[in-house]
Amino acid sequence: MSEVIASYLIHDSSGDFEKKAEGIALGLTVGSWTNLPLLEQEQLKKHKGRVVSISELETCNRVNQYAGEQLKQAIVKIAYPAANFSRDLPAILTTVFGKLSLDGKVKLIDLDFSTDLLQAFPGPRFGIDGIRRLTNVSDRPLVMSIFKGVIGRDLDYLGTQLREQALGGVDLVKDDEILFDSDLTPFEKRITTGKAILDGVYEETGHRTLYAVNLTGRTYDLKEKAKRAAELGADALLFNVFAYGLDVLQALREDDEIGIPLMAHPAVSGALTPSEFYGFSHGLLLGKLLRLTGADFSLFPSPYGSVALPFEEAISIGTELTTPNHYVKRSFPVPSAGIHPGLVPLLVRDFGIDSVINAGGGVHGHSDGAVGGGQAFRAAVDASLKGIDLRDAADTSDALKKALDLWGTVEVHA
Amino acid sequence: MSEVIASYLIHDSSGDFEKKAEGIALGLTVGSWTNLPLLEQEQLKKHKGRVVSISELETCNRVNQYAGEQLKQAIVKIAYPAANFSRDLPAILTTVFGKLSLDGKVKLIDLDFSTDLLQAFPGPRFGIDGIRRLTNVSDRPLVMSIFKGVIGRDLDYLGTQLREQALGGVDLVKDDEILFDSDLTPFEKRITTGKAILDGVYEETGHRTLYAVNLTGRTYDLKEKAKRAAELGADALLFNVFAYGLDVLQALREDDEIGIPLMAHPAVSGALTPSEFYGFSHGLLLGKLLRLTGADFSLFPSPYGSVALPFEEAISIGTELTTPNHYVKRSFPVPSAGIHPGLVPLLVRDFGIDSVINAGGGVHGHSDGAVGGGQAFRAAVDASLKGIDLRDAADTSDALKKALDLWGTVEVHA
Ligand SMILES: [Mg+2]
Ligand SMILES: [Mg+2]
Repeated sequence: MSEVIASYLIHDSSGDFEKKAEGIALGLTVGSWTNLPLLEQEQLKKHKGRVVSISELETCNRVNQYAGEQLKQAIVKIAYPAANFSRDLPAILTTVFGKLSLDGKVKLIDLDFSTDLLQAFPGPRFGIDGIRRLTNVSDRPLVMSIFKGVIGRDLDYLGTQLREQALGGVDLVKDDEILFDSDLTPFEKRITTGKAILDGVYEETGHRTLYAVNLTGRTYDLKEKAKRAAELGADALLFNVFAYGLDVLQALREDDEIGIPLMAHPAVSGALTPSEFYGFSHGLLLGKLLRLTGADFSLFPSPYGSVALPFEEAISIGTELTTPNHYVKRSFPVPSAGIHPGLVPLLVRDFGIDSVINAGGGVHGHSDGAVGGGQAFRAAVDASLKGIDLRDAADTSDALKKALDLWGTVEVHA
Repeated sequence: MSEVIASYLIHDSSGDFEKKAEGIALGLTVGSWTNLPLLEQEQLKKHKGRVVSISELETCNRVNQYAGEQLKQAIVKIAYPAANFSRDLPAILTTVFGKLSLDGKVKLIDLDFSTDLLQAFPGPRFGIDGIRRLTNVSDRPLVMSIFKGVIGRDLDYLGTQLREQALGGVDLVKDDEILFDSDLTPFEKRITTGKAILDGVYEETGHRTLYAVNLTGRTYDLKEKAKRAAELGADALLFNVFAYGLDVLQALREDDEIGIPLMAHPAVSGALTPSEFYGFSHGLLLGKLLRLTGADFSLFPSPYGSVALPFEEAISIGTELTTPNHYVKRSFPVPSAGIHPGLVPLLVRDFGIDSVINAGGGVHGHSDGAVGGGQAFRAAVDASLKGIDLRDAADTSDALKKALDLWGTVEVHA
């Protein structure tokens, strides 16, 4: 059966989930059923939605008090035949969560695609394995750092920052997501200048750092701009996908003339995910859907910092991105915000080696600047993988020692 | 000053809104300030965000119990210099609500654009006045109806439904938002068939009904498809803008080769608006931003039905769409869902004559079918505008009488 099964978390005061589920399954497909003539039922059978399951959950006093009424909650699964929609995500989202998103406390927590539908999505072009080939890093988490405080600064300033970050040994540097095209630091100049600087560092040190440039502007200009970036030798594109649309990411991924890695930034996604009652689950939006539509990297708030996700939510994103799937490559989880070298053992425990350790302040705030910051992270990664306590590893890494003195370590419980 | 001022509703346990606001104003612009050399401060001055105001609100016990902590709340306004972003909505949203959307309980409730930024948005091509010229209806709310139960049906079925709706005297008929391209009812065929049918009704009755066809598919195919629709004589386009992105709507609006009215459907927007703590206010998303980016019509849940918005939220959308503005035309509010003829006096009281009265079940469920349903609405509109009680008006309209018998009337308090 070619179909998508949507899982919803529903809070409802009537608590008649059978009726509610039937109402969804019909209302979002053929509209009505029992009153139709048999002949029409026969014709419409392949378009009719189906209630797959209803699992009632415990009620929650805290929620009831807040809502001011007794709310029952359930996970409801509905199957929507693929015969009803074109094979694009806007059509699928409109079907499974169009009108329904407006109909009370309904949160879309998962989508399960039948194989043929799954194959309609490209998945990442490179994926974890492809990015490992590009970076020539096979056996450890990648380390990434972020430009800091670059608004209003010129190319020289950016260039200096880029060089320092690369000299520290990070594998990737990403643009600040709020850096747009401007006279000071135009897109193409950032690419060519960045490339020259990183080539220089490679010649000096033998270490290759990739730079993800922020792809911004009007939707219908993005593809041309991305192609131009690729022509100029850009390493990767950072993309604020949720300020545009997942289908735009997919189109960038599918264009062979672009053909470079795509890094999805979670900007604006906080409008869609954190509510207990509404929107999308983190695992679905920042995990499964970003992977299916083609993000090689998905950034999301780590569970550790001040801007943090609940632990299980962050883990669910990682799981969605990295669980092997025959049809779709894996994407790199990039748990971000509040990351310092002392957190590396925790990051490795929670997200594994197939992840990217990403820091802004944790690189730039180092007492030896971004060079020391990058070195500290690299040393922390090496120690973590060898099972060496960071305090011990700091004996042979001055950069790590300074980082730990500044930010401390975090005890890791297996 | 060229800038956008963002208003946020913030729930915060520290309650130190001064600090929080300063953190936002700097963190989302120049990054740091007090520790910068004077020369750099001078250079960065025009990029620095500014706290405009902080208004603390009453705390709410219900919220505190739910959150499990004491939360103070405030409306915080921050000004972001236009020097920081390109003049496109993705850049603006990423600036004002990118990372910040992920940073605790922050809801974006308004955006105020300086005049030059406002002028970067097209606003609706037709707007209320332009649509009135197209429909030749100057002095009453428009009446619209919706195809019902068309999934899995063929063109003949759609054509019959369209004709019946038009014969009832509605001004507009819109596609079901979950009707996508399919072999049964392809996009272009819907346009040409619909046009022939509506031309026929016009010749028979002298009443012109417009048909809004659902523009669907992959993002990068939409413009060509919309142009083709316009060439084929399509009256208007329905668009599930929130399954794509507001910038896509804007691009459709700006393309002169498309040039036909755009009707924004709120599908999927319920993932963004209903939370008390997160996302966007209804007035901003379904009102101001849809108007600025070019929707001639904005559909949203009425405050009356089972799928309903809180009254003030629905009204705020109407206000945002219709308040006169020198730079942007007005858009038609289309309060939808659960609308029957008995509600018309209430709709007129709450949304004025510059609105669209839109019904699905309230048209098709009429005992004389969609013809009677449309007639009942038109009679209810005429009576409401003349201040005649619907029950009295039903004496001279059999269709209205049957509708009131079926759905009743609603008492209107001024
Ligand atoms: Mg940033
Ligand atoms: Mg509908």
